[in-house]
Amino acid sequence: MKIGILGLGLIGGSLGLDLRSLGHTVLGVSRQAKTCSIAQERGVVDHASIDLALLNQAELIFVCTPIAALASTVGHLLPYLHPDTILTDVGSVKLAIVEAIAPLWPNFVPGHPMAGTAETGIEAAQTQLFRGNPYVLTPTATTPAPAIAQVTALVKSLGATLYQCSPQAHDRAVAWISHLPVMVSASLIAACLQEPDSETLKLATQLASSGFRDTSRVGGGNPELGRMMAEYNQPELLRSLLRYRQSLDQIIAQIQAQEWSTLEQLLQQTQQARPEFLRTEE
Amino acid sequence: MKIGILGLGLIGGSLGLDLRSLGHTVLGVSRQAKTCSIAQERGVVDHASIDLALLNQAELIFVCTPIAALASTVGHLLPYLHPDTILTDVGSVKLAIVEAIAPLWPNFVPGHPMAGTAETGIEAAQTQLFRGNPYVLTPTATTPAPAIAQVTALVKSLGATLYQCSPQAHDRAVAWISHLPVMVSASLIAACLQEPDSETLKLATQLASSGFRDTSRVGGGNPELGRMMAEYNQPELLRSLLRYRQSLDQIIAQIQAQEWSTLEQLLQQTQQARPEFLRTEE
Repeated sequence: MKIGILGLGLIGGSLGLDLRSLGHTVLGVSRQAKTCSIAQERGVVDHASIDLALLNQAELIFVCTPIAALASTVGHLLPYLHPDTILTDVGSVKLAIVEAIAPLWPNFVPGHPMAGTAETGIEAAQTQLFRGNPYVLTPTATTPAPAIAQVTALVKSLGATLYQCSPQAHDRAVAWISHLPVMVSASLIAACLQEPDSETLKLATQLASSGFRDTSRVGGGNPELGRMMAEYNQPELLRSLLRYRQSLDQIIAQIQAQEWSTLEQLLQQTQQARPEFLRTEE
Repeated sequence: MKIGILGLGLIGGSLGLDLRSLGHTVLGVSRQAKTCSIAQERGVVDHASIDLALLNQAELIFVCTPIAALASTVGHLLPYLHPDTILTDVGSVKLAIVEAIAPLWPNFVPGHPMAGTAETGIEAAQTQLFRGNPYVLTPTATTPAPAIAQVTALVKSLGATLYQCSPQAHDRAVAWISHLPVMVSASLIAACLQEPDSETLKLATQLASSGFRDTSRVGGGNPELGRMMAEYNQPELLRSLLRYRQSLDQIIAQIQAQEWSTLEQLLQQTQQARPEFLRTEE
């Protein structure tokens, strides 16, 4: 089929590579002419343009712009769409997006491919980015069934593991396992930087190894993305942050009271529970 | 030289492999006869025994028992030592160990090799475990200079990066980059387990990917080790935990007040600061 991709970054570019290799015709639009050139050179798209008009041939369009730009982008896109064109997005929050886009375009299937790399941009686009990773669709009661079926089939063809739930359920779950870890991890780095003794801080940077590297990784990630998680998933992120602070306070209280056995029991629970969150063993 | 290793787990076993390959004669003692057999089969030691008397031939002994057993182990070892035998340890806290061991044996050089794997025990012992990793020595004003020189030379021969500081400075720095991350990470897992809605928790476990895996890794580690960090480094760990809670509260307050630009600035700072803590780029 003819598939449009609006926004040719890591996710849009990687979608293009896989969809073309599956035999679809991929039409890509970026605001940057240079990105269009790279996309064509790398074989990410069949045709690329900075003009939204290119997408009026598309039967289905992945909107892959940053969350903050999504509603205005779709607004500009509307004049070029056939009534039966299906829109889907790739944003990492869903309720705010559904509330913004569904009134503009009923044939919209909200989506969230949970795949990524440390890199961004068209240069980072890669084949098989989605294979084996979760891809969540969050249709509402009013989302047309044929549109859901169409996007579902495409997601499965990418080799992704499909999940379907409400936008609210999605946002609550990803607050726990994606957005909360960013804030927990950023707080770790921020706290270290508050160390008043510069010699201690210097020694800490010298001695830091894999434990610190892993625990601080997502807190040292893209600041704009971290901000978007908080801005567009504020209620759920706050909910998980406040529960997190309770758990932290419990551990602090145990250490203050020297309740070592109780602390060890808690650490046994976390050790036992963690594998449930890991789809593949380390 | 003749080197003793008391405690044949991951660290003791890995020391044996490297020290033998450097031409030293390695004498190993374990409480378990089976561990002694494995150590000999794997070439970790030249001779192994469950009898401490084996170590009376050693010129230098690495005491590699868990922190909780260290003082009593050294107490049992004393009758077998020559007056000029050098003792060194591998414990991950230093002040409590120095206060316990230095009065028993003046010729003691406190040490902390900052290397490890997810595995434990003699089976996990590997060559070159220490190469390129920090190895901290924390002698005091009364530690004999020849003993420091001897241990320093051995540590360098392992390819480790040597650091020397006071026990207090060590404990304060590792609280930041090793012990605090364990509690931060364990709190993340513990908080998720507090989610009252089982459907949300199930979806969260299904959607969790690399971000959650990395941030939760050290919090899902050895509970006994986590307890030891807290028990033997309580003041410094509490100091860093309370500063961490301040940083967390700052982020929570920014999200509550919808101060998105301020939050993004903070995330820019953590993104910029993190590479200072990483000796090798990811």
